[in-house]
Amino acid sequence: MFENKGNSNTNIENLGEFGLIDHLTKNFKIKQKSTIKGIGDDAAVISCDSEKELIISTDLLLEGVHFDLSYMPLKHLGYKAVIVNLSDVYAMNAEPSQITVSIAVSNRFPVEALEELYAGIEAAAKIYNVDVIGGDTTSSTTGLLISITAIGTVNKGEAIYRNGAKENDLLVVTGDLGAAYMGLQVLEREKEVFKVNPNSQPDLEPYSYLVERQLKPEARKDISNLLKELDVKPTSMIDISDGLSSEIIHICKNSKVGCNLFEDKIPLDPQVVSTCEEFNLDSATIALSGGEDYELLFTIKTEDYPKIKANPHLTVIGHITDEKEGMHLISRAGTKIPLIARGWNALKNNG
Amino acid sequence: MFENKGNSNTNIENLGEFGLIDHLTKNFKIKQKSTIKGIGDDAAVISCDSEKELIISTDLLLEGVHFDLSYMPLKHLGYKAVIVNLSDVYAMNAEPSQITVSIAVSNRFPVEALEELYAGIEAAAKIYNVDVIGGDTTSSTTGLLISITAIGTVNKGEAIYRNGAKENDLLVVTGDLGAAYMGLQVLEREKEVFKVNPNSQPDLEPYSYLVERQLKPEARKDISNLLKELDVKPTSMIDISDGLSSEIIHICKNSKVGCNLFEDKIPLDPQVVSTCEEFNLDSATIALSGGEDYELLFTIKTEDYPKIKANPHLTVIGHITDEKEGMHLISRAGTKIPLIARGWNALKNNG
Repeated sequence: MFENKGNSNTNIENLGEFGLIDHLTKNFKIKQKSTIKGIGDDAAVISCDSEKELIISTDLLLEGVHFDLSYMPLKHLGYKAVIVNLSDVYAMNAEPSQITVSIAVSNRFPVEALEELYAGIEAAAKIYNVDVIGGDTTSSTTGLLISITAIGTVNKGEAIYRNGAKENDLLVVTGDLGAAYMGLQVLEREKEVFKVNPNSQPDLEPYSYLVERQLKPEARKDISNLLKELDVKPTSMIDISDGLSSEIIHICKNSKVGCNLFEDKIPLDPQVVSTCEEFNLDSATIALSGGEDYELLFTIKTEDYPKIKANPHLTVIGHITDEKEGMHLISRAGTKIPLIARGWNALKNNG
Repeated sequence: MFENKGNSNTNIENLGEFGLIDHLTKNFKIKQKSTIKGIGDDAAVISCDSEKELIISTDLLLEGVHFDLSYMPLKHLGYKAVIVNLSDVYAMNAEPSQITVSIAVSNRFPVEALEELYAGIEAAAKIYNVDVIGGDTTSSTTGLLISITAIGTVNKGEAIYRNGAKENDLLVVTGDLGAAYMGLQVLEREKEVFKVNPNSQPDLEPYSYLVERQLKPEARKDISNLLKELDVKPTSMIDISDGLSSEIIHICKNSKVGCNLFEDKIPLDPQVVSTCEEFNLDSATIALSGGEDYELLFTIKTEDYPKIKANPHLTVIGHITDEKEGMHLISRAGTKIPLIARGWNALKNNG
């Protein structure tokens, strides 16, 4: 699905702004019943359902800040740009239904490059069953920029916010953490090797999971249904885009509570552990601050613990305390360390 | 309302990403009943009404492409960025209710500059009665970028599209055209004068209307109600952002019809006429290709003509023909000239 096309080159200006968006989206299909009008008018039109609430989330991705095209293929970038937004919708306990995609692009990108980008967007839209209903294309004086707005729905009153965590609730995370950040480290190392020796053939096999988590992440579309099946309603929820610690802090601050997070409970993939050793990095720090995992973090009532404890997708990593007790990481050695928010940008600048 | 503040300088990095968005939006009030959750979670939440349809429109504005900060004060820029999006919602015959605002900004902008930008956004949100419910702030390696998504509602089945124009319908435009483009010409001339002589005091008084249309445009929030009062339902509608001719072409192509547009019917403000003479430009060309007027263009059935003919806001500028007859401008001399789409970008590059 993600192979590259040949290197033909068509200048964007040959198509013009109106031609370009029509060209890039001509194969996109409308599948959602609620989409009344997609691309091609002043605005998109969606039907409403009084039994539902509407979810709106928006994100900007910039070349040189959020992605590096020297190791991020455009098709993967398009895919990831969609995932990042859908993850926010799932974090509200909602189902995404539509997205709008705006891009600013310099004319160093041929039309074929944008076709790759949109092929990735289309692939994600298909897999996650969302319609691309609008957008804007414009020229940029510098790099590439992608702005996506995701729209979703949730049954009335069933949206889950960041502010519902209560003392004694359990802190639960889906999947495992830190892999996307370690994938980035591996790719950046290979980029440096490539600069020195352009003929080197990187062996990424031992890092396959890490690289996939960085280049082709998925959003947790399964969790909302899983929780329904388990008959568990989280008291608060957020997605992990900036790193576990900053997301826990968001929940605690919004819910006016404290927490104890146990270092030895944080779920890590074996590749994360071995690659952290290889890079001489502390794996817990990476999980806490790495970001881009797009897993979900939520809190549940203690009485719901039996319902989730055997589930391979879910790990209890701590519990909520009174606000006065503060937010702490309990280290393997039993030391209580205050949690601080260090997003992946901060980590990058310091490392 | 649009005075500038003193020149204090706070570095963005002092606030950090999370602090920045909280700081910039702390005075924003939620006024729409439908806004359940605004800024501060993974996504915003809006209530739905089965009697309504939802309208979604999105636009990107880039420094160096869509605006020049050397004559566009940041407060005006914030205001205009909102207007551009609301205009698309009004063009669907809908009422805007919420917006999301994402910005990418380089750290050459102090926090005070962003406060000015957000003061403009807040002013527009207040006047047009929309809630700012979300957004994203990120660092940019170069200039300033603003991405806005506007959300609105319209009664079920009452959205007006581009594709409903029928043969013999009348082509109607609101307000007058070409002023925003001529305002840009005046400002660009003053910028050149300023480069040569930084002490020059420009006299913009004779161009006040033009400059205001460029720097502080308004969206036609009055037209939807006006048409209801007049008991007229347009058969198609679009807003004039790229210039009259390209908007007419959009309507004709989407509706599969042709048109005759009469040059002598195009509404021009006296300042446009006199300033075009001064700049040795043809005022009809400016109205056709200038863009950024944010007026509405629509078609009505011939039998509705008596209802609108006396209205000072509305001007009939032509009529719809069979598709085979093509799209034409009938010049003052009676010559039939094929309409071509030349957006303001094209005009700028050629002029």
